[in-house]
Amino acid sequence: MSDSTAHPLIIDALQYPVPERRWFEEWRAGNVGCVHVTVAIWEGAKATLERLAAWRQAFADNADLVAPALRGGDIEKIAASGRTAVVLGFQNTAPIEHDIELIATFRELGVRIMQLTYNLQNYIGAGYWEESDSGLSSRFGRTAVDEMNRVGVLIDLSHCGERTTLDAIEYSSRPVAITHSNARAFVEDPGFGPGRLKTSEALKALSRRKGVLGVCPNRSLIAKGTDATLEEFTELVARTVDLMGVDAVGIGTDYCAGHPASIRTWWRYARWSREQAKIPPYAPHEAWQEWFRSPADFANIIDGLARRGFSEAERGKILGQNWLRLFSEAFEPAKVEKAAA
Amino acid sequence: MSDSTAHPLIIDALQYPVPERRWFEEWRAGNVGCVHVTVAIWEGAKATLERLAAWRQAFADNADLVAPALRGGDIEKIAASGRTAVVLGFQNTAPIEHDIELIATFRELGVRIMQLTYNLQNYIGAGYWEESDSGLSSRFGRTAVDEMNRVGVLIDLSHCGERTTLDAIEYSSRPVAITHSNARAFVEDPGFGPGRLKTSEALKALSRRKGVLGVCPNRSLIAKGTDATLEEFTELVARTVDLMGVDAVGIGTDYCAGHPASIRTWWRYARWSREQAKIPPYAPHEAWQEWFRSPADFANIIDGLARRGFSEAERGKILGQNWLRLFSEAFEPAKVEKAAA
Repeated sequence: MSDSTAHPLIIDALQYPVPERRWFEEWRAGNVGCVHVTVAIWEGAKATLERLAAWRQAFADNADLVAPALRGGDIEKIAASGRTAVVLGFQNTAPIEHDIELIATFRELGVRIMQLTYNLQNYIGAGYWEESDSGLSSRFGRTAVDEMNRVGVLIDLSHCGERTTLDAIEYSSRPVAITHSNARAFVEDPGFGPGRLKTSEALKALSRRKGVLGVCPNRSLIAKGTDATLEEFTELVARTVDLMGVDAVGIGTDYCAGHPASIRTWWRYARWSREQAKIPPYAPHEAWQEWFRSPADFANIIDGLARRGFSEAERGKILGQNWLRLFSEAFEPAKVEKAAA
Repeated sequence: MSDSTAHPLIIDALQYPVPERRWFEEWRAGNVGCVHVTVAIWEGAKATLERLAAWRQAFADNADLVAPALRGGDIEKIAASGRTAVVLGFQNTAPIEHDIELIATFRELGVRIMQLTYNLQNYIGAGYWEESDSGLSSRFGRTAVDEMNRVGVLIDLSHCGERTTLDAIEYSSRPVAITHSNARAFVEDPGFGPGRLKTSEALKALSRRKGVLGVCPNRSLIAKGTDATLEEFTELVARTVDLMGVDAVGIGTDYCAGHPASIRTWWRYARWSREQAKIPPYAPHEAWQEWFRSPADFANIIDGLARRGFSEAERGKILGQNWLRLFSEAFEPAKVEKAAA
């Protein structure tokens, strides 16, 4: 491989690590230029401030490895410096509670991506676990999307229900993201069930509105789980590119490092259910395919995409440039027409 | 009128006063034996603790006029002592956020009634302002109803959407309340619109499941607003009794005393919208009919019901005994079958 093939800009559109040096070192080992990390799922406003403070401290303590990215240009500069640019995001709108002002507030604090719902119904819409989904809610839901569009927060729909996903894609005046999911049509028997994956209708709408999907190797989102081969994964990428176009496909690994099992269970069951005592503990985060034991193995994905026949330009888009284009646009405030003088 | 006619137990199933002595004096002037007061609408858990603390202080400062009621028996004892029993409640589930444990936590702190939604969609269901209502949410919604049933918190559906109202009536294993609404079929052109009122289907289901409706004289929930006559109000009560039966009808005034206009606006628009700057300030709380200028005028309603032909026993049920029956049952924890020895 040429150097340029070996070192395209890699952007991983979803990880949820504990903010500790060990995981940043894995990023550097994999030459990962940018990671969108989850700051909060069920945390309310106050608890989210504490999570953000932990990331602030991690940036200060590990400035040789990581730095926060607030705009697209930051991503390129930080990656060029041999460090990993970190984009902060929420996997739920619990942090903004039902206060429209908290969207701009958390953006000021560095948050650039917000997933509208996490599995369940909330003020804004339904998650994929709900039996029914009435879509983006007509009051707070639409107002929140308007506000995210206005201030420059990228909307993520990965865990949303089908109607909420379709509604948000159409209602948003700016392109949105599905940072970590897969095409339902191409994945047989995923561990999380087909509802967690996206219909072709949704993915085509996403692409038409200039959004990007992060194809996800997480064992629960692909066929055969940890037994999936690299070739099967790159075949999934290829079929997704055929469906959506090469400008709409990226990677989002959903790699979640360092959390104890109790926290991983809490992501699913939080405090909204008494069922958590009855379920078996989740597999540790290390349960990945042998070709992606951690983000340090990103080179295997690059090689696999090349073997599958993707050109250098195509690999560049899939590995990072599509996300860079979307992040660069979406993190800026909406352009406001100047009033006539 | 005989003394017993003049002094039936009066329970007002919904008021939202600032916790200040002036409003407690009105209750005593009206010989009101019990009031369910709203503690919080949009407040999260922490802010709700502060609201509860304000009520705790008010009880200490005004022990000659009011006392908190935790069970049905408290209501009778406090009313018999010439004071007003106060039942604490929420008009929204914002205080429990999405934490099932906070239902029991707030019950320990004295809260006995929780309205599932306030106008909008939330984690549990939809409010009546939403364009679509997919009902009681299949995860947190059902779990929360189960938990309220278990610990002894009465569910209120006054501001819920139609599907959420119907679902909750059916799903709840214990009778529920609609503390302040009216029958949509009998009210022409209410100020808040017909969606805020309840369909005959919902009211008949409520009655069948042994719940109670609080018929509401609030200007925005009845025909002709502040011009409605006492005779028109008692006619509404009579028609509602014909629809639901005399055991399912009470009074809930929605009298909200002492809040500044900015707070009254916040109830409607909270921080979920930027529209609040554009709407005119709401009428002050004093905008009531001449026969109900305040809860001090409850005697007029008693007289009106008598003139409309309700017997003393019927008046007793409507004015307080129906709520006393429901509150007494609903505030107790669910009976648990003893395991065989």
